[in-house]
Amino acid sequence: MLVATPSGKKDIRALWMDNGVVKAIDQKVLPGKFKIVSIRNHREMAVAIKDMTIRGAPSIGAAAAYGMALAWLKKEDLAKAAKLIKSTRPTAYDLFYAVDLMLSKAGLDLVEAADDYADGIVTMCRKIGEHGAKLIKDGDKILTHCNAGALATVDFGTALAPMRVAHRQGKDIFVYVDETRPRLQGAKLTAWELNNEGIDHAIIPDNAAGHYMKDSVDLAIVGADRIARNGDFANKIGTYSKAVLAKENRVPFYVAAPVSTFDMRIESGKEIVIEERDENEVLCVGDCRVAPKGSKALNPCFDVTPARYVRSFITERGLLRPGRFSTLK
Amino acid sequence: MLVATPSGKKDIRALWMDNGVVKAIDQKVLPGKFKIVSIRNHREMAVAIKDMTIRGAPSIGAAAAYGMALAWLKKEDLAKAAKLIKSTRPTAYDLFYAVDLMLSKAGLDLVEAADDYADGIVTMCRKIGEHGAKLIKDGDKILTHCNAGALATVDFGTALAPMRVAHRQGKDIFVYVDETRPRLQGAKLTAWELNNEGIDHAIIPDNAAGHYMKDSVDLAIVGADRIARNGDFANKIGTYSKAVLAKENRVPFYVAAPVSTFDMRIESGKEIVIEERDENEVLCVGDCRVAPKGSKALNPCFDVTPARYVRSFITERGLLRPGRFSTLK
Repeated sequence: MLVATPSGKKDIRALWMDNGVVKAIDQKVLPGKFKIVSIRNHREMAVAIKDMTIRGAPSIGAAAAYGMALAWLKKEDLAKAAKLIKSTRPTAYDLFYAVDLMLSKAGLDLVEAADDYADGIVTMCRKIGEHGAKLIKDGDKILTHCNAGALATVDFGTALAPMRVAHRQGKDIFVYVDETRPRLQGAKLTAWELNNEGIDHAIIPDNAAGHYMKDSVDLAIVGADRIARNGDFANKIGTYSKAVLAKENRVPFYVAAPVSTFDMRIESGKEIVIEERDENEVLCVGDCRVAPKGSKALNPCFDVTPARYVRSFITERGLLRPGRFSTLK
Repeated sequence: MLVATPSGKKDIRALWMDNGVVKAIDQKVLPGKFKIVSIRNHREMAVAIKDMTIRGAPSIGAAAAYGMALAWLKKEDLAKAAKLIKSTRPTAYDLFYAVDLMLSKAGLDLVEAADDYADGIVTMCRKIGEHGAKLIKDGDKILTHCNAGALATVDFGTALAPMRVAHRQGKDIFVYVDETRPRLQGAKLTAWELNNEGIDHAIIPDNAAGHYMKDSVDLAIVGADRIARNGDFANKIGTYSKAVLAKENRVPFYVAAPVSTFDMRIESGKEIVIEERDENEVLCVGDCRVAPKGSKALNPCFDVTPARYVRSFITERGLLRPGRFSTLK
């Protein structure tokens, strides 16, 4: 992705491997600071996934693959490394998919395998962008939630990929960016990416999405962390709300995700484990507590949106309707 | 309302008049600080309404009445004072209602008239609480948005009044408090009031309301800033989203408001002016900018919820169904 670094605009990825060390953009400190962190072993990688230095389902998958590659380089016990990495976050399917893929290649060069896996994600994202851009007309106003951009997917993005391609095709688009409390990935990361690309946008409070769906939004595109066989899917908390509002206002609602996000082992969204994160992400903003002493908070990180709200899934193989996944795996 | 002040728990109002000076709890600095401000003339009152030192439709109405009383005490031009006070915030009907009421009493003691008006609001709120508590069963989980509590209504509250009464009746209730970005009136003010009363609650990100409506929330109660003749109503941004989610999940959705909030001059919500506030309320959290340089934000303060989403309006005269307002005025 095009990134405005302190030394000018550069084309770099969210994470990559360089001489046995994984480098990653620290997503916790954007957009205030642009910082590249070095991750030297699979234990540091587990921390980086857990604390959301690296986040977004496909990027978590790549991070998990690189974590396994680091363990392989250091001649660590791969089964133990796999277990630690899988324990970091429970919801994103890509995490488990990538670790198992690396385990299945245990006799091979895992650095090469992880590079291939990361490159594969980017190729898939570019295809998602091409398929998805056909859904976007000149002049369209698009709503998105959280960050399913280049940062979340090594490069290019899932939900943002169709917008990137449409913009590069010369279509005049406008993006409503849900700020996405509690961690504000929309306001911080998606807005940062759109700024870098010069795509016209405005950040809105999550509360305002319904207001703009009534008469301004032409379509909504979001990412996914795990998609069940029946088309139910988990994504950032608030996605379900936007899907319901889209249906109520006849706004087409699309989910952009690579085939690796489809978990064909589970029948429906009921089987998806929802991560609960620390209540301080809600009670505090930055370092400042906003809630009164004595109040607690609930902080589910994801919600499950039933398949019936989804117009289509935008994948690297084209558009898929819920219930038409039988050919996937 | 019961308030935990630095010197212990006290029963005080959100605002009152004392020896020719209006005293008000500064709602901008809660819950971190508890501070009483003094407002000495109608110009200071206009500032206090505009900057949300005093907020919430019924409290704004009382503040407007007291503002007119201050102008009368200081022998100012009442027509000019009315114009200034009416210019502060465009959406809440109570503001216009209260100023016009004071103008109609121009020959009388306006301090007494404003006191009567404020007392009248509190009496109405108590009745709203009694009528609304009948809708709450022992064990119910209730969702509310923003702050329609004692702070917003001089005392007792509109949306929170039924919860106060149910709690005092010994019913075991639990309240999901939408944090209510961008200004976080839920996390800051509603949670503070519920803490003071000892009512069990948790703050949730606005994004999580849909998630909990799916299988936990038994009913939702919100306030209103203006209600049109057909039952469409304006309330804090995000209310429309919660109403749609409630309908989708068959959660009864109630609006608690005194009759003074019903604006029988307007046919529908289309005629309600929506206040747009400073984009920095979204781009920054506290003093800290969270969004990248170059990104802008949209910040509509209210949205309009169509009447069809409302099960009933809880008023001081009992429950009213949309379309049954003909007897109101």
